[in-house]
Amino acid sequence: MTNEDSNHPTFSSKSEKGITGRKIIYDKDGKPCRACNTLLDFQLVTGKVSDSGPSTGLGKLGSSLGVLGNQTKVNGYAKEDPPDVEQLGRSSWSLLHSIAAAYPVSPNDKQRSEMKQFMTLFSHVYPCWWCAKDFEDFIKKNSPKVGSRDELGLWMCEAHNEVNEKLGKSKFDCSFWKNRWIDGWD
Amino acid sequence: MTNEDSNHPTFSSKSEKGITGRKIIYDKDGKPCRACNTLLDFQLVTGKVSDSGPSTGLGKLGSSLGVLGNQTKVNGYAKEDPPDVEQLGRSSWSLLHSIAAAYPVSPNDKQRSEMKQFMTLFSHVYPCWWCAKDFEDFIKKNSPKVGSRDELGLWMCEAHNEVNEKLGKSKFDCSFWKNRWIDGWD
Repeated sequence: MTNEDSNHPTFSSKSEKGITGRKIIYDKDGKPCRACNTLLDFQLVTGKVSDSGPSTGLGKLGSSLGVLGNQTKVNGYAKEDPPDVEQLGRSSWSLLHSIAAAYPVSPNDKQRSEMKQFMTLFSHVYPCWWCAKDFEDFIKKNSPKVGSRDELGLWMCEAHNEVNEKLGKSKFDCSFWKNRWIDGWD
Repeated sequence: MTNEDSNHPTFSSKSEKGITGRKIIYDKDGKPCRACNTLLDFQLVTGKVSDSGPSTGLGKLGSSLGVLGNQTKVNGYAKEDPPDVEQLGRSSWSLLHSIAAAYPVSPNDKQRSEMKQFMTLFSHVYPCWWCAKDFEDFIKKNSPKVGSRDELGLWMCEAHNEVNEKLGKSKFDCSFWKNRWIDGWD
């Protein structure tokens, strides 16, 4: 991902706003990036849905649900579409917080070094290139705190909150990170 | 994860079957592993739900949905419980396939080496320790194919199918991996 950033068009070069109000993000080949946009915006910009809704009669919401209009199966698998930027974000944060929750309370040197390396590589291979770039920049300024499970869990919570803030979402109260990701609320 | 495997109890030492028919998996401290079991089995073995259902009156299903019984919020966030082994699996496969989908068609040496490293580290930090061990064993026998996007996408599909087979799930037809993870079905 890192090596290719300079080849990506800048945000302003070809961007326009989608139905959701987000800017449309393109890949370096000029095509809309599926992993970087919401499904609805991706469908809009690829002509699969219009501002007035798709031809299925389900409206924008039905279309954005994807599978609603397409219940056929392959080998018992529903023909699901690739995840969009929001599904990918939810899945990935869920995994990253759970990784912190399972990190040793007192990690050894190898575990500390592997966790730092993992976070750096994660920021190189993440499918949404502009999210990956953001995460890489965050890591450069805020090196992952890998001294203990507590440290990593709080660091992850703060990393997530930085993204929440950029997206205009409310911040999670990090004093509850263990309830959310280890112990539950009961 | 790797360093601790020898400290984990073996599958048979303390295992019993949960409501779902899966064996209950424990951490090395002897406590049930939240990331290794389904929520329902975890609740059963921690006494939060009985074979005859929980006290909420919602029955097993209501309890396994977690949030149903607990709609209070923290800072605008629903008090969601940590993901169980199935949610974690879905999230992680979705991320891994999407990573393959975004991998360069013609990766350079650095990208190839980073992807191999990422997969190895993934198998060390994955929150469900016995799933992680399985993935690590798979990687040792089947080194990730990182020569191109196609190679990696097919390798990932086969890795996922190996797990599907172990869990008694149907296999995905890998000739459709690009529809599922890059192009969609239209």
